[in-house]
Amino acid sequence: MAPLKPCLRMAGIQFLRDAFRCQKPLGPQHAPVRGYATPGPAKPRPYGGKPKPQPIVGTKPLVGTRNPASPTPAASPTPKVSPDLKPKTGTVVAPYWRISIGVLLCGSIVYSMFTEPLQLEAASIAERDTLAKRESGINLTSPMRLRMESFIKALQQEIVVALETLDPSQRFRIDTWTRPNGGGGISCVLQGGKVFEKAGVNTSIVYGTLPRPAIAKMRVNHKALDPDVESIEFFAAGISCVLHPQNPNAPTVHFNYRYFETMDAQGNCNAWWFGGGTDLTPSYLFDEDAIHFHRTIKEACDKHDRDYYPRFKKWCDKYFYIPHRGESRGIGGIFFDDLDEEEKDQEQLFSFVKDCLTAFLPSYMPLIQKRKDMPFTEKEKEWQQLRRGRYVEFNLVHDRGTSFGLNTPGARVESILMSLPLTARWIYMHDADRGSREERLLNVLKEPVEWV
Amino acid sequence: MAPLKPCLRMAGIQFLRDAFRCQKPLGPQHAPVRGYATPGPAKPRPYGGKPKPQPIVGTKPLVGTRNPASPTPAASPTPKVSPDLKPKTGTVVAPYWRISIGVLLCGSIVYSMFTEPLQLEAASIAERDTLAKRESGINLTSPMRLRMESFIKALQQEIVVALETLDPSQRFRIDTWTRPNGGGGISCVLQGGKVFEKAGVNTSIVYGTLPRPAIAKMRVNHKALDPDVESIEFFAAGISCVLHPQNPNAPTVHFNYRYFETMDAQGNCNAWWFGGGTDLTPSYLFDEDAIHFHRTIKEACDKHDRDYYPRFKKWCDKYFYIPHRGESRGIGGIFFDDLDEEEKDQEQLFSFVKDCLTAFLPSYMPLIQKRKDMPFTEKEKEWQQLRRGRYVEFNLVHDRGTSFGLNTPGARVESILMSLPLTARWIYMHDADRGSREERLLNVLKEPVEWV
Repeated sequence: MAPLKPCLRMAGIQFLRDAFRCQKPLGPQHAPVRGYATPGPAKPRPYGGKPKPQPIVGTKPLVGTRNPASPTPAASPTPKVSPDLKPKTGTVVAPYWRISIGVLLCGSIVYSMFTEPLQLEAASIAERDTLAKRESGINLTSPMRLRMESFIKALQQEIVVALETLDPSQRFRIDTWTRPNGGGGISCVLQGGKVFEKAGVNTSIVYGTLPRPAIAKMRVNHKALDPDVESIEFFAAGISCVLHPQNPNAPTVHFNYRYFETMDAQGNCNAWWFGGGTDLTPSYLFDEDAIHFHRTIKEACDKHDRDYYPRFKKWCDKYFYIPHRGESRGIGGIFFDDLDEEEKDQEQLFSFVKDCLTAFLPSYMPLIQKRKDMPFTEKEKEWQQLRRGRYVEFNLVHDRGTSFGLNTPGARVESILMSLPLTARWIYMHDADRGSREERLLNVLKEPVEWV
Repeated sequence: MAPLKPCLRMAGIQFLRDAFRCQKPLGPQHAPVRGYATPGPAKPRPYGGKPKPQPIVGTKPLVGTRNPASPTPAASPTPKVSPDLKPKTGTVVAPYWRISIGVLLCGSIVYSMFTEPLQLEAASIAERDTLAKRESGINLTSPMRLRMESFIKALQQEIVVALETLDPSQRFRIDTWTRPNGGGGISCVLQGGKVFEKAGVNTSIVYGTLPRPAIAKMRVNHKALDPDVESIEFFAAGISCVLHPQNPNAPTVHFNYRYFETMDAQGNCNAWWFGGGTDLTPSYLFDEDAIHFHRTIKEACDKHDRDYYPRFKKWCDKYFYIPHRGESRGIGGIFFDDLDEEEKDQEQLFSFVKDCLTAFLPSYMPLIQKRKDMPFTEKEKEWQQLRRGRYVEFNLVHDRGTSFGLNTPGARVESILMSLPLTARWIYMHDADRGSREERLLNVLKEPVEWV
């Protein structure tokens, strides 16, 4: 039997400990999601979402997989919130089950102590972070990586709950997974629903080691990186979302925001940066929808810097472009990357990214609510399928994020490719009719429009 | 007005000349397709195809685009052969129309002679080849590039005719296109048919110039390339075919064979090589089909070298692999590249490639005939759609041919992407049932099988 590593021993002990004690709730100073960030005074939520759930305390990763087809452990009361995402505030879930697992784990540990010499290893940064989250929770003095992780996990819950209100008959499937070196992710996917053909909201946390060539590459944009070391510890936290609606009048939407940092052996942050963006991909263009989407994002940007929206809109138009088709994937939004201390200080940029993220639901929910029940023809559905084909082309051929993901050893491919639509179509030499709505869209995709 | 280049003037005159005289028929020594190359004594065609048409004489590129929806100029008699692909042996097609165009072209030439100073340029290799084909036709003493071009264009016709016999209600759409620097292609595509969801058979001829970095890259495999020049003229001729059947019991098939050479300024060949391969992608596995497909290819290989099949089968398994899925695209076939004088002499390799190509119809037609009318369920159709999704993933993420094509400036994207299926599907976390036919296929895709 291979020796059980100290980290596994720690996990086993921690597991058992958790089974007997309550988790520490978050202090009031930490409220990651404070409404939907529509600028100005607080307004009633425009899309009538249910009250938002409290965030998962301490961001303990959820264990196990729930398939919506299989019976859930306990029927959840109204409002319908995915059981795995239900707020966990001071209650112990299934204590007997957890005790049994803990006993099993501890049994293995004891066995390994008798059969293998004890190998003492320093706890990794991931292990120390896990401990810190459990012991002290997250507050304003916590390292940025823990605050970003906590924020995106809470927002993921909120978005899943809001999307489930659109079609209460359909629930998200939730898969949680862990990475061998620390970190993991939560993938929430709904497919074949009445409103969404496919909808995915993912978070992922990665602890890893950057080898020398990767450091050299990153130094182009981040001079704070030390070029004279063989490797550097890094951390990445990201949230991404892609929604492909059933109705061809309703647009596909995507967002993805991430935080990246490198650390010394003690876990102190060295270099860091934020990246992300959001964009809208309609099959049929409604100018009012495009204007609403862009205006909502612009308002979130303007709160921080009047240059951000025009600058990041241009960046988005450039990024979400399909060169071999000579057209954009959609009608844009914003995109940015490598925003570090040369741009603004860390707190200001975190605040900016939080506002972008919080603007997502107000930017999209009114559109899907207006379009999801519109009548459509078979020909319009076919056109949507062709546009889905172009979405696949962009994601598989040109998207650097997808390419990076697929080339990362041990990556969870199902989570990366959840961005692909449920269905897509390629018709050889398809032509849009003259003066049609299809042609109008193609013209806009060839020449980006200033919507606000 | 920009000066009319000498090549255009030449083309105009040639056009007018062609309108008045018959094209020279090919001598009996040139018969590119001599049956279906089933080894041993001549057998009746196993798939009952109609008699093959004679090749296009002199390989004059077809001009214009035929849409099957629009009325054809003249109803074609039985056997149904696409009008654009009908044999042209010594007859002049629409002489009055050609005369009018010729007169127009000559008018432009005369006009340009009075308005612009005459710029004398040496005829390009493409222009000289065009002239040679028109004047002398193709025979055994013609340069290899012209013989390969002639062979693949004749085979393209034969395949299109054979496939149209499977579903006489559906005809291939034929698009011909030319490249500004010489060469061009013929794309034959059928979509939404009873037998094939999508079927494409393309040929393309490219004359171009390799810049220094490209030469350096190619020298790794071809030491005959001169490293001390700024650029080299090159020629490439290729035929490719992808067939996606409607019935999930019928396999998708692909082949692609190409010839590449570099020339000096006089058009004499310097370096040259052949590449290509064929592979089968079933959604449901029938062992007898896999065995037949591989055996037919093996027999074609064995005629030339007993090592070819095992060596190129292994190469195929390695090439058509989807690393991020940990599975092969299909059940393989053969693949090879860069076969030059270090492998065998040019005539021997051309003969090998011809036999591979000629083996295509006998390798595939019996399978599609057996499977095209089998009953199937909606669930089986869905599984086929999922496999189509994997096909798209391979082609867009990993296929070097597609990637090279999409990155070539001025490439005809519709011809490159005709390999994509009409429809595809991505289900998040799809699982095959234990012991099912779907699971059987997945197991084979994870571990290549020796079929013969």
